[in-house]
Parts: sequence; C-alpha cells; structure tokens
Amino acid sequence: MLPILLLCLLVSSSHAADFCVADLTGPETPSGYQCKKESAVTADDFVITGLGVPGNFSTMFKAAPKTAFVAQFPGLNGLGISAAYVYYAPGGFIPVHSHPAGTELLVVTEGTLLAGFISSANNPYYKTLNKGDAMVFPQGLLHFQVNVGETTAVGVVGFSSPSPGIQVTSPALFSNNLPSAVVEKVTYLDDAEVKKLKKMLGGTG
Amino acid sequence: MLPILLLCLLVSSSHAADFCVADLTGPETPSGYQCKKESAVTADDFVITGLGVPGNFSTMFKAAPKTAFVAQFPGLNGLGISAAYVYYAPGGFIPVHSHPAGTELLVVTEGTLLAGFISSANNPYYKTLNKGDAMVFPQGLLHFQVNVGETTAVGVVGFSSPSPGIQVTSPALFSNNLPSAVVEKVTYLDDAEVKKLKKMLGGTG
Amino acid sequence: MLPILLLCLLVSSSHAADFCVADLTGPETPSGYQCKKESAVTADDFVITGLGVPGNFSTMFKAAPKTAFVAQFPGLNGLGISAAYVYYAPGGFIPVHSHPAGTELLVVTEGTLLAGFISSANNPYYKTLNKGDAMVFPQGLLHFQVNVGETTAVGVVGFSSPSPGIQVTSPALFSNNLPSAVVEKVTYLDDAEVKKLKKMLGGTG
Amino acid sequence: MLPILLLCLLVSSSHAADFCVADLTGPETPSGYQCKKESAVTADDFVITGLGVPGNFSTMFKAAPKTAFVAQFPGLNGLGISAAYVYYAPGGFIPVHSHPAGTELLVVTEGTLLAGFISSANNPYYKTLNKGDAMVFPQGLLHFQVNVGETTAVGVVGFSSPSPGIQVTSPALFSNNLPSAVVEKVTYLDDAEVKKLKKMLGGTG
Amino acid sequence: MLPILLLCLLVSSSHAADFCVADLTGPETPSGYQCKKESAVTADDFVITGLGVPGNFSTMFKAAPKTAFVAQFPGLNGLGISAAYVYYAPGGFIPVHSHPAGTELLVVTEGTLLAGFISSANNPYYKTLNKGDAMVFPQGLLHFQVNVGETTAVGVVGFSSPSPGIQVTSPALFSNNLPSAVVEKVTYLDDAEVKKLKKMLGGTG
Amino acid sequence: MLPILLLCLLVSSSHAADFCVADLTGPETPSGYQCKKESAVTADDFVITGLGVPGNFSTMFKAAPKTAFVAQFPGLNGLGISAAYVYYAPGGFIPVHSHPAGTELLVVTEGTLLAGFISSANNPYYKTLNKGDAMVFPQGLLHFQVNVGETTAVGVVGFSSPSPGIQVTSPALFSNNLPSAVVEKVTYLDDAEVKKLKKMLGGTG
Repeated sequence: MLPILLLCLLVSSSHAADFCVADLTGPETPSGYQCKKESAVTADDFVITGLGVPGNFSTMFKAAPKTAFVAQFPGLNGLGISAAYVYYAPGGFIPVHSHPAGTELLVVTEGTLLAGFISSANNPYYKTLNKGDAMVFPQGLLHFQVNVGETTAVGVVGFSSPSPGIQVTSPALFSNNLPSAVVEKVTYLDDAEVKKLKKMLGGTG
Repeated sequence: MLPILLLCLLVSSSHAADFCVADLTGPETPSGYQCKKESAVTADDFVITGLGVPGNFSTMFKAAPKTAFVAQFPGLNGLGISAAYVYYAPGGFIPVHSHPAGTELLVVTEGTLLAGFISSANNPYYKTLNKGDAMVFPQGLLHFQVNVGETTAVGVVGFSSPSPGIQVTSPALFSNNLPSAVVEKVTYLDDAEVKKLKKMLGGTG
Repeated sequence: MLPILLLCLLVSSSHAADFCVADLTGPETPSGYQCKKESAVTADDFVITGLGVPGNFSTMFKAAPKTAFVAQFPGLNGLGISAAYVYYAPGGFIPVHSHPAGTELLVVTEGTLLAGFISSANNPYYKTLNKGDAMVFPQGLLHFQVNVGETTAVGVVGFSSPSPGIQVTSPALFSNNLPSAVVEKVTYLDDAEVKKLKKMLGGTG
Repeated sequence: MLPILLLCLLVSSSHAADFCVADLTGPETPSGYQCKKESAVTADDFVITGLGVPGNFSTMFKAAPKTAFVAQFPGLNGLGISAAYVYYAPGGFIPVHSHPAGTELLVVTEGTLLAGFISSANNPYYKTLNKGDAMVFPQGLLHFQVNVGETTAVGVVGFSSPSPGIQVTSPALFSNNLPSAVVEKVTYLDDAEVKKLKKMLGGTG
Repeated sequence: MLPILLLCLLVSSSHAADFCVADLTGPETPSGYQCKKESAVTADDFVITGLGVPGNFSTMFKAAPKTAFVAQFPGLNGLGISAAYVYYAPGGFIPVHSHPAGTELLVVTEGTLLAGFISSANNPYYKTLNKGDAMVFPQGLLHFQVNVGETTAVGVVGFSSPSPGIQVTSPALFSNNLPSAVVEKVTYLDDAEVKKLKKMLGGTG
Repeated sequence: MLPILLLCLLVSSSHAADFCVADLTGPETPSGYQCKKESAVTADDFVITGLGVPGNFSTMFKAAPKTAFVAQFPGLNGLGISAAYVYYAPGGFIPVHSHPAGTELLVVTEGTLLAGFISSANNPYYKTLNKGDAMVFPQGLLHFQVNVGETTAVGVVGFSSPSPGIQVTSPALFSNNLPSAVVEKVTYLDDAEVKKLKKMLGGTG
C-alpha cells in the first residue's frame, strides 16, 4: 500500500489544473464562472445530452438552433470552446449576426447551405457548402447561412470560446427602445423602414 | 571599464523583450508584424505626429476620424493598444459599427456626444457625454456616437488591440456585391430599401 | 463618389485584423503561420471540402478520422479553433491519447460511443453517448472513444486551437527507438509486453 | 409574438459574453473582479464623468493626473483597457515610473511635452511631443514626461490593461522603511542622498 | 506632508495590479483562486520554506519530488509560474507523465539524469544531463527522467503555470476502476499485463 | 505494415503543435522567433549545457548570473518559461531591477539571501531566504537579492516568459546620455549624485 500512496505524492498537487466545471449559481468573473468543488464533479458534468435533438423551428427564420455554451453546458467553463447544433428547413436561414467573443467553425452534416461572412474591408466571402464541407467565420465579423437546398440542412458548430456571444444585427437595431431618429442616422435607413422593422421585431420609440 | 562591462552582462540577454516595432514591408503573423531590427529602431518609431490634426470631414457623416493602428503607427506592434482622434462637426456622427478584435474607450475632450452600444441581449446602453467624460464600448458590440451639441466635438479613443478592426454595419451590408436577395433575407429589410442603400453606398447586385 | 470614398476612411485601417490565412510555404511562429497576402485571399480559403467524406478505415482501430487542423485548413490560422470528422465502425475506437495544446469537444451525430477521459487525479470520467449528445475532453488529458453500438458511429469534433496536436499513448511509447529498458522503467510494463508492443507498433530497441 | 420569442432563442444564451462590470465589493481574481449581475447594469456603469476635470496639482511635480482604472471605472473590468487624463503645469512632470502590467499610449491634446522611456538595454528613447502627437511606452519600462512648454499641457492616456499598476521609482525606493543600507547597496546611491530622499518622500530606516 | 500625499495620488489606484495571493479557502475560477485582501498580505505570502528539504523517497520510483504549485504556495496565484524540487536516488526516476497545462524546465543541480520527451509525431528527444545542464519539456507531452549516475541527483524545476497539473501515464491507466476491457482496447496491452498493473497500482475492474 | 501506417494518420496532422525551436537568424515577431524546421530539430535543441557553471563574478556586484532566455536557449521559444543560474559571493548582490515581461521565481540552492520586492503601493516585501526556500517576484516590480551569509549563495531562477527582459534601475538612469537635468527632475536626485553615478556607470550628459 505504501508504494501506491507515495506514487500519489506525484499527483496530489495537481487536482485543480484539469478543469473548472461552472457553478452557475455563483458570480461570474472575466475568466468565467467559479468552479464547482471537484468532489462534486461527475462524468455528467462533461456531457450534454440531446443537443442534436431538433427544437422548435422559428417561424421567422425557419431554423432550429440549439447552443451548448457554458450557460447550458457547465463543463465547458474555462476550456475555450463551445458548440451548437442547427437544423435549417428548406429556405431556412440564420440572420446576419456576429459573435463578439469567438470564431465560429461550421461543419455541414446534412444538406446544402449558402454561407458567408463580410470582412471589415466590406468584402463578402461566401460559398455553397455541401454535406461534409466546413467553413470558418472569423471572430466578430458579420456572417449568415441560408439553406439553399430542397431538404433540411444540418450544421454542427464549434466556437473558440465557452461564451462567444451572439449579436443578431436586425434585432440589435430594431427590437428595443433605441430612438428611431438615432437608428436612422447611424444606419442610413429611412424612417419608414426603421419603423416597419421596429414593429416586426418588437421595438419601440 | 571592466565593472561596467560586467554590469552589462545582466542586461545583454534581454534586448528583445521590450518592444517589436513592426516591419510593415514583411509578412504578418497572427500575433502581428515581424519586428524591425532593434539596431534600426529610434525614438521616432514610438511617436506618431499629427494624429490630432483634423483631416477631411466626411460629407456622409460630418466627422473626421484618424486612426493610429499598427498599420499607421508601427511602434504599437505587439503592445496591445492603439488609438484614434475624432472630430465631429455639429450633427456629425460615426455610423453604427463594431471592432471585431478590441474594446474601445472614448474620452471626450471637447463638446457633447450621444454615445451608446447594444448588448447581445439587444439592450441599448447610451448616454450623453460631456467634455471630460469617458465611455467604454465592449469588444465586438455595435456602437455609435452622435454630436448632439452645437459645436465641434472631439474624442480621443483608445483600443485594447494594435489592430482592433472596424466593421461599419451599413457599408458591410450595402457597399459590396453581396446579392440583394441574400441581404434582404438575412436582414429582414425590404427590397427597395436594400437597393436604395446599395446605390447610396456603392454596392451592386 | 466622394462620400463613399470618405466613408472608406473609416475602414481603410482595419484590413489585417480580421483573419490571417496561413501561408503554409513560409515559416511558422509560436502564434502560427505567416499570413497570406489579403489580396490573394478568396472564399475558398475559409472552406474545407470533403471533411465529412469517410477516408480509409484503420485496420488497427477500425475508425476513419479526418482532421481539419491549420495544416489542412489554412483559414483557421490564428483563429483558436479546428475540427475533425470521425467514423467508427462497430467495435472501432480511437486509442487513448491526449491533445497537448487544446480541449476537444465531441458531438455524436450517428450511433453510440463509450467515451471518457482520465483526470490528473487518476479519476476516470466516462459515459455512453448517443446521437445528439456531446462530451468535452479537457486539454492535455488522456481520453478515448469506443463504438459500443452495432452500427457505424460518427462524431464531429471541435478543438480549442488551430493546431491542438495529438499524442497517442501506445505509439508514443512503442513505435520508436526509445530503448526498451527505459520504457519498462518509466511505465512499469514488463519486458515481454514492451517488446511485443514495439513489434506491433513498429518500434525498435 | 411567437416569431419574436423564437428569434430570442438565438440570443438567450449569450448574455454574459459581452461585459463583466466589476462588483468592487467582492473579491478579486487574477482575471479581475467578480461581475455585477447583468440585471443591475445600466448605461452609467460604462461611463465615467469628470475624468477630464483637473484635480489638485501636486506641489511635488506640478501635475494633476486622474486615472480611470477598473477601481475607479468598474465597467472596464475584463476589457483590457483603461485611461488617464493628465494636466501638467509649466515645468510640471510625471516622475520616472513604470506600469508593471500594461503599455501606455499618450496622446497630447494641449501644449508641449518632453517624453521618453528607457529600454532594458539602457537606451533612452525620448522626443518632444506637440499637440496632436502621441507616444507609446512599452509595458514595464521606465518612462517620464516633462512639460517643456510655457503653457499647461494636457495628455489623454490609454493603457492596455484595466489595472496596469504604477510603480514610481523614487517613492518605491525612498518612501518606505526599506533599510537605507539595503537601498544604498542595490542602487549605488550614497548614504547622504538616500537619507535626504527618504526624508523628502516620507521614508524611514 | 502635503507633497507626499499628493505624490501618493499617483499610486493610489494601482494597488491590485501587482499580485493576487490565493485565498485557498474560497472558490477557484478558470484564472485561479480569489485574491486574499491586500491588507492581510505579508512577505511570508511570497516565500515557501523548505521546498528543497528532501521528503520521503517513494519505494516505487526511488525519488522524492516536492511541488510548489499554487495549492502549496498561494503567492503564485495568477503569476504564470510554479516550481518543484526533486531528489533522485541512484536508479531513481520519475515515471512517464505529462503536464496538461504547462511546460517544464528542469535544471540539474547535482548528479546525472537521462531525461527525455516524446513528440506527438512519436519522436523521442532524450539526452544525458549533468550538473548545471537544463532541459525543457514542452506542454502536454510525455516525458521522464532517470538517475543514471551513481549518486543522488537533484533537479530544480520551473513550470509555465501556477497549476500545471501532472498526469502520470501508468497510474492514470491502471490505478482506478476503468474496466480492463476498455484499457486493453485503447492501449493494445494484453489482458494479463493490464491486470498485473492494476494490481500493482491499486486499480480494480 | 499497413496498420502502422494507418495509425500514423492519427498523428500526421499534429507535427507543429508541440514546440517551435527558435531560428535565431530570422526575424522576431511579437510571439517570438520563427520556428526552425522540425526536420532539423534534435534533442540538443531542448538542452542547454553549462548553465550552472559559474561565469565571471562582476566586480560591481560580486555575483555571477547566467541567463537561459530564448536568445541563449532557442528551445524555449513560445513555451512561456526561461531560467537563470546565479552565484552570489559573500556580500554579493543583484542590483534593484525589474522584469518588464515576466514574473521571477527564485529557488535558493546554497547559502542565505536577503531578497525582496516593492509593490506599486510602495510597500517593501522582503525576507531572509535559506537553502531550500523560494520566493516569487511579481512581474514588473522592483526587486533585489543580497547575499547576507558568509559563504557563496546560489539561486536557480525561473521566469514566466522565454524573454522576460531585465531593467536594472541604476544603469537605466545613469549609464546612458539621458540629460542630467531630466534625470534629476524625474528622480528628485541632486545634481552631484546624478553626475557621480553617471561617471560610475558610464553615462554622459
């Protein structure tokens, strides 16, 4: 027994280096959530079930995205990665958006998507992706996907952060109470269009 | 003389840790440009002159921004910071945009600005800033500034990266050849508006 | 035309912040490869085709992994993420291994896998994963997957680095010329077993 | 209403990625303070007022610096940037100092400063800066500014950290109870000078 | 007195930037432990005594390692470094292992060691080290040291993380309840050897 | 042979993740030197010999430091760590200095040192260290060591960067041509003392 105990000396000091499962009930910090005590961690903390089971399809964009960010999958805390699983009905799409804190890497597992991003030099980079293709959308840049096939398309997505954030451009501009006059000025959109979109997306003012 | 030489032993191995002035003629890497040889570096490499001299005012947004990113100020290479100096005519503004790779910290040195950003939960955070006030715009989020005073306003800006990038939303969507049908789908804007903005901002398709 | 040109002032300084497509012909640096010139970058640089097309199945582990690391997918350079697509025949598996420079996030898109990792406190965390489940394997820790179902299983994998590395334990110890006496001493394996594995895996000495 | 709710699915998981306003009453961590609950965050958290209003001028260096580090401006927590606003009376200066955890970028908005830093190879890099010029002082290196003009000079400063620290060399060496004999040995200063400076700067021993 | 007080203005805002001594009684975060209050910090927090006093020698590997990771030396919290002090009896060794979260730099201060690591391309890099030599073992890669001299060898070790972790390969595979059938499959070891090692190292199943 | 070849598929994509031995003849980047081609790398690249062999003792501080930074030890490139080996004659010392880009962790292997650092709040933290004790000096802060024993003391030092830099305060201020009037102003030292030190340390002006 002694040899084993002494071998343990080698590992006794390393317990906390491996992972930091989020305690979602505690406060966050700039590096993520506080860690759950290691003695309470089980294999279940490192698994999320049902991520690939399609949820409700949005009537507005005919797609059903499910995210596995740290808030849904505490085992990712501090580990620099997260995921999503997205179903796109024919004609379905993900509206133009960016991830303020992470790069997205999309792997198409079913169907055909037109996907692209726009660089800060205003150059669009877009391409039709088939089953088995993958595309990367660099951090913070506007991007989108559209199902241009005739069947449901499916994408499995990785992000370079446990909490990449999602800012969808149209709701950001039109679903809140930011005054229309300000929105019009800073977007060059006209008053009628801004008001139409505010109405469609639930904004006021 | 010997003592001095021996004192130099202490510092002889540290020459490259201090800075890495960009050699803009060479290739870039994910961490920035290659370093200019230290023997060729002078004080001028760490200074940019005339940043605060107003340039031409844009007729489209009545403001005159000048950036000191690493491409304009090679001494910033690898140092995690850059700057801009912005003049806003009365009614002038900076259109809604984001910095994919950096946080912005704006210090108002003259005049009055209405400034704000929108979070990824679509909440707008905005406020009127007077001379001597400062506001932070977190990395990757849409933000804007409008001169709501009756005089020229001036802002001195810091960024948390030598190359934060700027993605201005309307030119990103409307100044290029991204097909109108795609733009309309992923933004919910109507066809007439998209075409009007494409024309205004130089886009085609 | 002038307004548009002036609007461009806002974006002219940001060209290099967005991405850094690897020039695989040039030298590497600790942060990745040098960037291809932006003028030569096209949408194709951000897409990898056929990642999901199964390659040859290994006769030794009855699985067919394909990686999309930066060396295969230059668009990932500097972006903190990479991917793999793995087919596991019934009874197929990925031998115990670690990624020295990245966390792995596995999403099961077909079939049933037994997957697990071992912490540095020597605790195994393992679980049976079904279609649509995902599991995270923290950076640097030993882990494995075994197809315990009766059909081919498929996994789409994300890594938190464009170049996470793969160190497969048995080939690391037995496929090279590290002297058997050293291997035996530092693993506690007996001489016959080490020699058997060296023979099986191509090692000498 | 349903479409809007479903659109919200896209953003519901991203709330915490955007910012982490410091809760200054809680403990710190290596990455900064704990985050204030997002529901309690308002636009005021991202604004600091009066940073540019000059405070008291020091009689010892005839300058009036005001810092906006995270301890004064909680909205900066985790965002990699902070600021200062400095007034220098004619002949005023900032004594030689370093920032252990950040690079400084100084923008001169009024007057004329002689500013410089010393590299670890002991090379001084200094220059006269006029209104509109900017200079960078790389992390951890000794630097200083002196108003060499005949009017008040003003500088707006950015730092590459929300908490860069300031170590002013003379107070560090002479304002505390570090024994004079030790100070003399490790600086080569003579006993009389050390004692004079200890008296001037409030040190003992 | 006033000048001194005003000089203090310069430093009053920088208190927390310098260090973050771990409060080991509080929760951890991905960036490390919470900081002890600065008012309670003393010089003792930055010192560990007796690290170099040899502890018990393991009968299994005839070496006596002592680690100074953050859990043993709270002053290291957040500072990116830790240490170990290792005595190797003649014939003693450190079994093959990796550090999931840090690079190791070994300096030999007494005796002669055979030390090496294996790259992820399965290439072994090993060499005999004498007193005064040093070797680096890159993050996450398998490595080992064997005292091949006739006297006790001593190594002083630095790690590039306050909590690099230690995963010792044989105990990771054989000292726990991971089923033998799984271990055999993912290592290619035969059943008898796995059972022998499980018995030797305290594993079950 | 085929099985082995197919097993190799698993590792073929990971060659560059492990290390990046510096090519000291090429340009540097903010993340370090370019990597030597992996095919040219040997075990010798990861070893530095003779680091612990004492060099010449400085007559100015009666100590003999030898550094193993990346410029002397190319295998450290990109790996976040470096080392030094220091001999201190009785009464010998290392003058007050800081490392702009790294934390220092000193392990005393022989003798007795008085070692300390000064925080940015001007608080000195110092203590007498005996054989086997270790002390950490946080990044960027002024620190020193003095041999207060009657025999030679020896320290083995780790740094949290392959290129931490060394700025020795007195040579930084007095060994160059920074004008005496400026030095006096920004340090509060008197003219005679500045001129004496400039003469002693080789400065002019």
